[in-house]
Amino acid sequence: MHVADRLQDAIDNTGSYACVGLDPRPELIPEVLRYDAVATHGDTAEAVAAAFIAFNEGILDAVSGHCAAVKPQAACYEAYGSAGWTALAETIRLARDRSIQVILDGKRNDMGSTADHYRQMLFGGAPSLGGRALDGLGADWATINGYLGTDCIDAFLPPGTAPGSHGIFVLVRTSNPSASDLQDQPSGPDGTVSDRMAELVAAWGRKRLGRCGLSDVGAVVGANWPTQARDLRVLMADTLFLVPGYGAQGGGAEDAVAGARPKDGRGIIVSSSRGIIGAWQQHNAAGATVDWADAARHALDEMNSDLAGALS
Amino acid sequence: MHVADRLQDAIDNTGSYACVGLDPRPELIPEVLRYDAVATHGDTAEAVAAAFIAFNEGILDAVSGHCAAVKPQAACYEAYGSAGWTALAETIRLARDRSIQVILDGKRNDMGSTADHYRQMLFGGAPSLGGRALDGLGADWATINGYLGTDCIDAFLPPGTAPGSHGIFVLVRTSNPSASDLQDQPSGPDGTVSDRMAELVAAWGRKRLGRCGLSDVGAVVGANWPTQARDLRVLMADTLFLVPGYGAQGGGAEDAVAGARPKDGRGIIVSSSRGIIGAWQQHNAAGATVDWADAARHALDEMNSDLAGALS
Repeated sequence: MHVADRLQDAIDNTGSYACVGLDPRPELIPEVLRYDAVATHGDTAEAVAAAFIAFNEGILDAVSGHCAAVKPQAACYEAYGSAGWTALAETIRLARDRSIQVILDGKRNDMGSTADHYRQMLFGGAPSLGGRALDGLGADWATINGYLGTDCIDAFLPPGTAPGSHGIFVLVRTSNPSASDLQDQPSGPDGTVSDRMAELVAAWGRKRLGRCGLSDVGAVVGANWPTQARDLRVLMADTLFLVPGYGAQGGGAEDAVAGARPKDGRGIIVSSSRGIIGAWQQHNAAGATVDWADAARHALDEMNSDLAGALS
Repeated sequence: MHVADRLQDAIDNTGSYACVGLDPRPELIPEVLRYDAVATHGDTAEAVAAAFIAFNEGILDAVSGHCAAVKPQAACYEAYGSAGWTALAETIRLARDRSIQVILDGKRNDMGSTADHYRQMLFGGAPSLGGRALDGLGADWATINGYLGTDCIDAFLPPGTAPGSHGIFVLVRTSNPSASDLQDQPSGPDGTVSDRMAELVAAWGRKRLGRCGLSDVGAVVGANWPTQARDLRVLMADTLFLVPGYGAQGGGAEDAVAGARPKDGRGIIVSSSRGIIGAWQQHNAAGATVDWADAARHALDEMNSDLAGALS
């Protein structure tokens, strides 16, 4: 099934437009998991990796069936070297075991055969010494930086004759404070650098649509720029928007859904990480002792209500 | 010592402006190394990783003292998962053992605390569960995508009060065929998107200069666009240019050094990968059986002569 249809089905079946960011950090890990990991592995990168896996497994059990997808952040795992990479691979395996779709947030890109290797990392197919195709991480989608242009995007896409086995989200307008430095620079007769990127994204996704009318080339459009999101929707009519910046980064539900397609309210998936996986700490800071997985589920339920309200 | 001074010293001591790209791929590995790796590890990702390490060690021994730096390409290793990551870490360790400086080519970027995790991956400092600072890969420099703007660059730089413990190269004008899609779009009253990026790079590196007059914020400027390289030099007077695209990607020596500073011929380091590490295959294809490490050294010597001639 086309990757955009798979994701739209998950949205329809769960009633959730939410993507849970799996961005584990030592300070987000409950004491009991930290203790177990250090007891087994010492105070090492391997202990961090073991704690990440245990934490993510609890989160995945809590959110399964109630979110559209999960989004592991590669940087959080890479900081712990090969042990961290093992935790990333295991996290994706645990999500797939639960039929939860995975957006790997790595913001990769490069050119030519190098981009091919990133594709192999994400979606499989790296050759062994004997010529076998090895497994990749098994992501459904990946975030990609489009600064290098068309040939570097093509490397990530299944052939045009068979679009949609996996998909990409290209950075168009990010949610960080300095996004404007380059992305808002004027470019062309009217518009900005991010408008030019949006036009490229629309062109890259043309003729690559699933049944749901969305393509396998999506866009990252930050939740804290609702006016821009609406303007960018005009340039990218058939593009799925991955919207980070909801919650901890400051965007509200109304802002997060601003880029939804006017005709059907579709075409968005909204990401939250710390607001969900770190929810237990907010309760604890307020004096209540709560189970971390229960707190994540509760925060996700609130986010789902919040988004549904804003979309209705 | 400031990272730009360290690199300039390496250039001065070796007489080489060359950076050897360590982009191993199964098809570049000589039969003897493939055979040994499969005999030990089977036809697995671990075998590929073992073959990469053995290959890189031979290349490093061959080029040590005759190049300014080496540049492992992260994608080639990541395609083989945690085993590949181990090969990347070991490759960097082997380079450091030989006092060869390392530019990790990963084209990373992200925002806020996520960018911090990439910095930890590259340069160290990820916290253990007990709060210890863990080692990173130990790179001297890393390639970075600047599309996200200032706050995402700051995360990678040592504090302004102590510039230069490590450095970054920001993508300004890449060497791939579609680089023009976004990078050549007009932006501002005169100039292009890559000109705007160049101005940001110059601003990010201001007041961060080493003794040699170059900053710890460098730029990637492809070898196949010499006219642009000269124009970009005007916008980035104190910026070290990492120049890919020499050799296999089509740029000649005159083109590769086009961005050198007019006043002293400095400010560039030119990268070649397949042209050096794959040189043994070109000889074999021509009917001569040569040692792969000898062939790499010979190709590097030719590149050094070529660049020196173009710079004189």
